[in-house]
Amino acid sequence: MKPAKLFLALLATGPALLAADNPAPLLGFVPEHAAAQLSLETKFDAQLNPADLRAWLEQMAAEPNHVGSPHDKLNAEFTLAKFQEWGWDAHIETFYVLYPTPLTQKLELVAPTTFTAKLHEPVIPGDRASANAKDALPPYHAYGADGDVTAELVYVNRGMPDDYKELETHGVSVKGRIVIVRYGGGWRGLKPKLAYEHGAVACLIYSDPRDDGYGAGDTYPKGGYRPADAVQRGSVADMPVYPGDPLTPGIGATKDAKRLTVAEAKTVLKIPVMPISYADAQPLLAALGGPVAPEGWRGGLPITYHIGPGPAKAHFAITSDWSLKPIYNVIATIKGRELPDEWVIRGNHRDGWVFGAWDPLSGHVAMMAEAKSIGALVKSGWQPKRSIVYCSWDGEEPGLLGSTEWAETHAEELQRKAVLYVNSDTNTRGFLGAAGSHALQAFVNQIAGSVRDPQMGVTVLERLRARTLVDGSRKGASDEAKAVAKLVAGGGPVPIGALGSGSDFTPFLQHLGISTLSLEYGGEDQQEGVYHSIYDSFDHYDRFGDPGYRYGVALAQTIGRAILRTANADLPPVRQGDFADTVDRYLKEIHQLADTMREATERTNKMIDANAFILASDPTEAYVQPEKKAAVPFLNLAALDNATLRLKQSAAACDEAGAQSLAAGLKLTATQQVELESLLQGMEQSLTDPTGLPGRDWFKHMIYAPGLLTGYGVKTLPGVREAIESRRWSEAEQYSGIVGHALDAYSDRLDKIKTLLKPVVPKN
Amino acid sequence: MKPAKLFLALLATGPALLAADNPAPLLGFVPEHAAAQLSLETKFDAQLNPADLRAWLEQMAAEPNHVGSPHDKLNAEFTLAKFQEWGWDAHIETFYVLYPTPLTQKLELVAPTTFTAKLHEPVIPGDRASANAKDALPPYHAYGADGDVTAELVYVNRGMPDDYKELETHGVSVKGRIVIVRYGGGWRGLKPKLAYEHGAVACLIYSDPRDDGYGAGDTYPKGGYRPADAVQRGSVADMPVYPGDPLTPGIGATKDAKRLTVAEAKTVLKIPVMPISYADAQPLLAALGGPVAPEGWRGGLPITYHIGPGPAKAHFAITSDWSLKPIYNVIATIKGRELPDEWVIRGNHRDGWVFGAWDPLSGHVAMMAEAKSIGALVKSGWQPKRSIVYCSWDGEEPGLLGSTEWAETHAEELQRKAVLYVNSDTNTRGFLGAAGSHALQAFVNQIAGSVRDPQMGVTVLERLRARTLVDGSRKGASDEAKAVAKLVAGGGPVPIGALGSGSDFTPFLQHLGISTLSLEYGGEDQQEGVYHSIYDSFDHYDRFGDPGYRYGVALAQTIGRAILRTANADLPPVRQGDFADTVDRYLKEIHQLADTMREATERTNKMIDANAFILASDPTEAYVQPEKKAAVPFLNLAALDNATLRLKQSAAACDEAGAQSLAAGLKLTATQQVELESLLQGMEQSLTDPTGLPGRDWFKHMIYAPGLLTGYGVKTLPGVREAIESRRWSEAEQYSGIVGHALDAYSDRLDKIKTLLKPVVPKN
Repeated sequence: MKPAKLFLALLATGPALLAADNPAPLLGFVPEHAAAQLSLETKFDAQLNPADLRAWLEQMAAEPNHVGSPHDKLNAEFTLAKFQEWGWDAHIETFYVLYPTPLTQKLELVAPTTFTAKLHEPVIPGDRASANAKDALPPYHAYGADGDVTAELVYVNRGMPDDYKELETHGVSVKGRIVIVRYGGGWRGLKPKLAYEHGAVACLIYSDPRDDGYGAGDTYPKGGYRPADAVQRGSVADMPVYPGDPLTPGIGATKDAKRLTVAEAKTVLKIPVMPISYADAQPLLAALGGPVAPEGWRGGLPITYHIGPGPAKAHFAITSDWSLKPIYNVIATIKGRELPDEWVIRGNHRDGWVFGAWDPLSGHVAMMAEAKSIGALVKSGWQPKRSIVYCSWDGEEPGLLGSTEWAETHAEELQRKAVLYVNSDTNTRGFLGAAGSHALQAFVNQIAGSVRDPQMGVTVLERLRARTLVDGSRKGASDEAKAVAKLVAGGGPVPIGALGSGSDFTPFLQHLGISTLSLEYGGEDQQEGVYHSIYDSFDHYDRFGDPGYRYGVALAQTIGRAILRTANADLPPVRQGDFADTVDRYLKEIHQLADTMREATERTNKMIDANAFILASDPTEAYVQPEKKAAVPFLNLAALDNATLRLKQSAAACDEAGAQSLAAGLKLTATQQVELESLLQGMEQSLTDPTGLPGRDWFKHMIYAPGLLTGYGVKTLPGVREAIESRRWSEAEQYSGIVGHALDAYSDRLDKIKTLLKPVVPKN
Repeated sequence: MKPAKLFLALLATGPALLAADNPAPLLGFVPEHAAAQLSLETKFDAQLNPADLRAWLEQMAAEPNHVGSPHDKLNAEFTLAKFQEWGWDAHIETFYVLYPTPLTQKLELVAPTTFTAKLHEPVIPGDRASANAKDALPPYHAYGADGDVTAELVYVNRGMPDDYKELETHGVSVKGRIVIVRYGGGWRGLKPKLAYEHGAVACLIYSDPRDDGYGAGDTYPKGGYRPADAVQRGSVADMPVYPGDPLTPGIGATKDAKRLTVAEAKTVLKIPVMPISYADAQPLLAALGGPVAPEGWRGGLPITYHIGPGPAKAHFAITSDWSLKPIYNVIATIKGRELPDEWVIRGNHRDGWVFGAWDPLSGHVAMMAEAKSIGALVKSGWQPKRSIVYCSWDGEEPGLLGSTEWAETHAEELQRKAVLYVNSDTNTRGFLGAAGSHALQAFVNQIAGSVRDPQMGVTVLERLRARTLVDGSRKGASDEAKAVAKLVAGGGPVPIGALGSGSDFTPFLQHLGISTLSLEYGGEDQQEGVYHSIYDSFDHYDRFGDPGYRYGVALAQTIGRAILRTANADLPPVRQGDFADTVDRYLKEIHQLADTMREATERTNKMIDANAFILASDPTEAYVQPEKKAAVPFLNLAALDNATLRLKQSAAACDEAGAQSLAAGLKLTATQQVELESLLQGMEQSLTDPTGLPGRDWFKHMIYAPGLLTGYGVKTLPGVREAIESRRWSEAEQYSGIVGHALDAYSDRLDKIKTLLKPVVPKN
């Protein structure tokens, strides 16, 4: 669901404040088990065959496979059969979800000139899939409202909050009008939501050629970038409130589940919305009058971008089939030998918007390769210490439906049993992109240090370090990129990102509080050019995604290690100090945020008093100056400050105890072992709070959440950070207490684990 | 010659490190003379009439008026007649300069497809001038070589030094090829020069629509921006080496002057070059193959920008008339009453590339309004204390010909007599843009505080302060913009810029060492859209330049005050502390530059050793990593450090003595007066050094110069700064000594003036 570009950006979310990682001891293993583990991984690798990935991808991407399509069901059955063939205990688990599909669509410019939008992606020579699209849905946005409106157009750039602020300075309102915005700058679903909140009657979202068309590179089929008629489909469900079936928040969408009506569903949009191509957008934008769009609002079309409103007026109508559709998750298990009730879970979705070769099948076939290889290991007599659960999710594209409904249905069991969830989605040529629970940062670095980059021969960690250094040395590099580069240059680990949303990890991490990793390769591809279009096809992926499928194999190696090591580990392969340092960094950002807002508010208010905005404006253009804002008070975040300080101390002590006890062979009594497992199980859940986040109690994690106003993009310490950003000061202080409480609960566990492990370190 | 946009950017060259300016005492006047001066200025203002400016502009821009055209001569005669009518002692001074004009031009794409460039700017409905262009020259670059070449094209972005570095990383060479670059990013003339130095056989420079066409705003005639066929002409003489007639460097191009041959002239380009429109550029760029251009290289055409080389191949041929042409300066004088041998000089050029309504006539008609008003004051019986000299320059566009030849011819007299040179060029609606000798910064602020903004009613200083505050508060504002805003918010003066080149101030400031100001309004116009094209017309200016000609009047008021106050002042209206603080800031920048280069070199060398650039690159694309560079040593800049410290102390003491002696009525004996005038005269010349700058000894000023690799853009402390930038360490240390010596000579004068003025302050 999430474009690779966005995902890679997660990498840049911050430095790890750690000393050099020491690859010598295998994290989580006593020395005597490490060699066997490495030998197991060698056998695992030997089973991976790029030809498998290519063949599965070609077959699974041969027909449209969106939710409800015949090929989606066939792919589920194919996946099931394969898992079973490889020795897994597998089954299909079906849910019934609201998934509206378009019946009729119409978009036409009615003034000052007329034009009827094509709303269709034609056949491209050499792309076999595009000629095989009879079962495809037309380009549309899932969970927009039906409607029939005729109104003036207003161009609002990316349609994000700052764009509406800018629009206000021009004295232009979107009330009663149709908003047209370009993709990018924030999650798609926020664009129509914000348009609605500002009074618009409909929203059109187009792909600007500067972003992913000819402005990015040669267009398909010459190159891989977006041709003029290609459209980016996508969900506009209000997933930052809750993902999953809009009618069954918090519970599984089983056949007999108690459902909301569509009108009651908070995540279904209230106005019609549609994605359009730049070929369809150009006549609409060219017909706009009003002020010339500010420089940052101008895209790559050969026109002067105007804001409007009007004289361009459009007629836009859409009707949909609002019936429930079935989704098919394939769930496959290898039972653990010693700890069968500890589950190491791995997932990738299987449904695409049309053919879905990149998104999601490139990741799905890597997961299948892992499953085949693990199956072979099992057939050869090996059995993991813990259980391994592989999941092929359906319905991710419309709203993380498959994963969310499964996680909600099995919430209690998962919270009791899940040790780790590892996700992937689109996977392509390039660099390892890793994000997730920061206690796993060293683990990720260690794994990356053991996987070879298929093109360069060095480890993927070395390549990632090189890129971090180069990114930090570029002209115009952000202070953050420079800081990360400096740390990496000094021998520090490559930081992993924090997870927002955009793929199936969300219900596990943010709803259930399960430790999570997202691992994918990318960055040397041209995915954005066909993202969510009919041209996301096997022929396109085969040329521009991962020719030779060697990064598919690299992903299987990478995630295979994460799964196998976690399944077999003697202690969790974590370094809690990484988590503590990361929280400390987030907290510093939050203090900085409040300080910066305080200064900016004071400065802006003074400028308003001095009439500076008016005097600096061009009097021949309409200009409405911003309103004065209340001063930013100094906030009491002491609870969070204190809890973070304690966390750093507890984490360091626990890490030391863990490393020492592993080095000493971890001789635990049976009682100690039981006590330890009990402390470890659900540890990440102590970072959740049952009240959840303000206005969206589905989101329970107090450290990571998708931003309410960023959609996919993460907000760390979200209860505090978003309260400050929205100037709700008392809420910020309230959440300082809640987050502090969660961190203290986490530290309590760390302290107990440390105490438990200390005696097992023999005294010299 | 210089576009308003560039000029306004000069404003951002740095903060003034001063306390709030106190407008109360009129700078340079004893209290008893101040009132008379202000009353004189009221009378001066009363004579200014916007209708005059409009009428003169319409008449002077009615026909093409480039060097050698009949209308250029007519305009000189008209200006002469007007000055004489207004009571000035005026004459025409003629020079004979090399000014090649095109005879034949041909540009065609010959592979892989064919296309013949139009090279012509058609009539635009509603623009009367464009229908009256029979005497116009076709679009061309003055001082390019003749030639006839057929070769592959290579796209090199802006054609600046960093672009060639980037090109090298792609493994692409321009040797034997035709370089095509877009305008912007640096001075036009450097583009073909650098192309030549890198082995190219020709250079094409086009106007990208993102910069000044539809990407900037509605195109002419709907709006004011560059239409598809409009071309930016311009000079490509190597003016950073020396401006003026290429055949007579350092001496006046009088009829009988000793001339170089064209082959000997260092400033004439060695390869053919031509400006083209974006309509002509698009087929050439679209035919390029090779790597996709880096993101920062992509413009606003609806194509994927490629680097090449080839398969696009072009045939380009040009021949020119290389004969000498006459240029006509109009020089007009009002003789001073007390100090006739002290000259306050004012100039604006009169020649355009075609009709020149914006550039230069908008500034020229403001200068005429000043002259008319001063004439009226004289007729009413007033006479200035010092002489006033007004200059209407010819031949500025091809290379500051008129001003440079005049300044070279009269160098000795000017260095003996000139007190101040004030320049303007294009003048339009907007904000005051001021640059020049920093001792005049407070003077400019005081004047700006006494002129009303025609649109807002506040003073132009208030508007400028407002814009500085707003610019500093924008998202993404540079650290410098923030620092300036902070100073201005704290009550500090608005800083003036440092002068590079691009208009007629250059020979006065940088060759002769005469205190200089450049003053113009702009920033709310659409000049860049027609800059140096046939559409720089009266009809265009009348709509988009300064409707109502009220900023023309504001410029006349602003410069009128500068001229009249300097002509009548009791002491020079300077605050030397501003100059000292500015030099101190430049010096800090230079230390920072060396430190930054040292760190960057060390970091980059380590990255090369670690193979980081290779590992971070995409192996499917050609990539050549940069070469290691020698470490940056610590430099001995002690001479400059010490001289700057002394300057700050001497300036502060001199300012204090000046202010006190003025407040006390400045009772000087005749002997003291003579001694003072002798110390003041040529004071700025102590900032020059007879050896000039490395490789370009025409440039004598040690504080300000156009950058050898920026063209118009200033380099401050150029001998030291450019040496460091070019890694010539011993030269940097050598110039530290030379600049330090110049500053010491300046401080010597300050100390003597202080000593002279001290006794005249009565002791209480």
